[in-house]
Amino acid sequence: MTARPILTAQTAPAVVTVENPDAKGRFVICCEHAANAFPAPWGDLGLTAAQQSAHIAWDPGALGLARALAAALDAPLVHAGVSRLVYDLNRPPQSPGAMAAHSEAYAVPGNTGLSAAARLARTEAIYLPFHAALRALLARRAATGPLPVLATVHSFTPVWHGHPRAVEFGIIHDADPTLARAVLAGAKATRLDARLNEPYSAADEVTHTLALQATPMGLRNVMLEFRNDLLQGAAAQHAMAAMLAPILQAALASIECPEPQRASN
Amino acid sequence: MTARPILTAQTAPAVVTVENPDAKGRFVICCEHAANAFPAPWGDLGLTAAQQSAHIAWDPGALGLARALAAALDAPLVHAGVSRLVYDLNRPPQSPGAMAAHSEAYAVPGNTGLSAAARLARTEAIYLPFHAALRALLARRAATGPLPVLATVHSFTPVWHGHPRAVEFGIIHDADPTLARAVLAGAKATRLDARLNEPYSAADEVTHTLALQATPMGLRNVMLEFRNDLLQGAAAQHAMAAMLAPILQAALASIECPEPQRASN
Repeated sequence: MTARPILTAQTAPAVVTVENPDAKGRFVICCEHAANAFPAPWGDLGLTAAQQSAHIAWDPGALGLARALAAALDAPLVHAGVSRLVYDLNRPPQSPGAMAAHSEAYAVPGNTGLSAAARLARTEAIYLPFHAALRALLARRAATGPLPVLATVHSFTPVWHGHPRAVEFGIIHDADPTLARAVLAGAKATRLDARLNEPYSAADEVTHTLALQATPMGLRNVMLEFRNDLLQGAAAQHAMAAMLAPILQAALASIECPEPQRASN
Repeated sequence: MTARPILTAQTAPAVVTVENPDAKGRFVICCEHAANAFPAPWGDLGLTAAQQSAHIAWDPGALGLARALAAALDAPLVHAGVSRLVYDLNRPPQSPGAMAAHSEAYAVPGNTGLSAAARLARTEAIYLPFHAALRALLARRAATGPLPVLATVHSFTPVWHGHPRAVEFGIIHDADPTLARAVLAGAKATRLDARLNEPYSAADEVTHTLALQATPMGLRNVMLEFRNDLLQGAAAQHAMAAMLAPILQAALASIECPEPQRASN
């Protein structure tokens, strides 16, 4: 009977963190691939240190951008504390990609031949609490005030299977393209190479969080993907957020007329 | 300092009950409008005893049918313990119908002019835990075995705003009509007046549970609506379940070929 369980709980990275839950803005920011942490009981999955810090393990720069964007928009931020290779929170539990045995050119030894019990344990420890926290945040806002708007923040690698990517800012939608199209229109005024549904689209199964959390609630939503070489360091992340925040605000305003606040009933 | 809080917790109806969570069948049965209970702190909402037992408060007969159907299909059953007039679990929190101030010809005094705090409290006490329990059940099954199939069980009144309804068995779908159409095909062999998307459809906002729980997970799903005069008493409910269970099994088999079990990966 030692204090070990309490110490473990205090020092392990949280599966989900909600920052600024009472922020007053319309947007809710979500960053599913924020962390490259490999905590117990899963550990490093047999990956090298280099692999653990590579884009296969997380979305480099995404959390810094998401945090700066949340501050600029006065938005809550929900982010993950565990690597996407332990559980990819943007995939449902039955997806092979939820606990991927391969990512780009790399094998993930700790995910090879996972038992049903291991899949269940990660689903219960990571997927369910993360999405329950985001669900609760969105439902509370929907119950009390103007409908929240969900924006997920991701980054992608400049080179994929050896091929460079030209797109810099991908704006991706689920069933409702309205907000994504409005964001794209605003992004045209920047110097970024901004494209709709690139380098991924819903057909690539990358809109699970939007489909799970926003679409069935009738919430406006968009997935924001940045090439990670544009998010290197806090200064770049803050500059990107400063450019992006007014684009998002203007995009939302443009699709909500005559006024952005839902009437109470 | 008395034992009252514990006694209250023991005697209050549970917001959500999961029966047979480890049942082996593919189907998961959900009954959102199972109960006409008006527990504290909400109480009777100013409704008469007759109103509290009428179809506006619940789906009469639905729980008995759902339970018999779950037994016949070896399925888990998730059902609500609170009246739909306290919170309609088939509606998102921002919907006026979630805590309806009017239902058919009746006013619901306790739901008139609800404050944001009251809407929030009911959302947190009823909507979130109910759907979290159903989500966890479905996600656990998706993580470990063949994909679960969601069937929600409802009943409707034979007379609506003075007009009799001819339809006896309504089969309603959300985005994916595949299972609903297969169930309809099977129901044609019965003596029931079975119709697709009657007396309601997704356009009437009645498929929230399907949209929230099944569609984003890629799960087959269907909403089953029975005219409540056909569900009066346990014998009628069991007879309906005995007729319905093989129709559901055959419908699922017909859309999953060549074999109903998903390959593991």
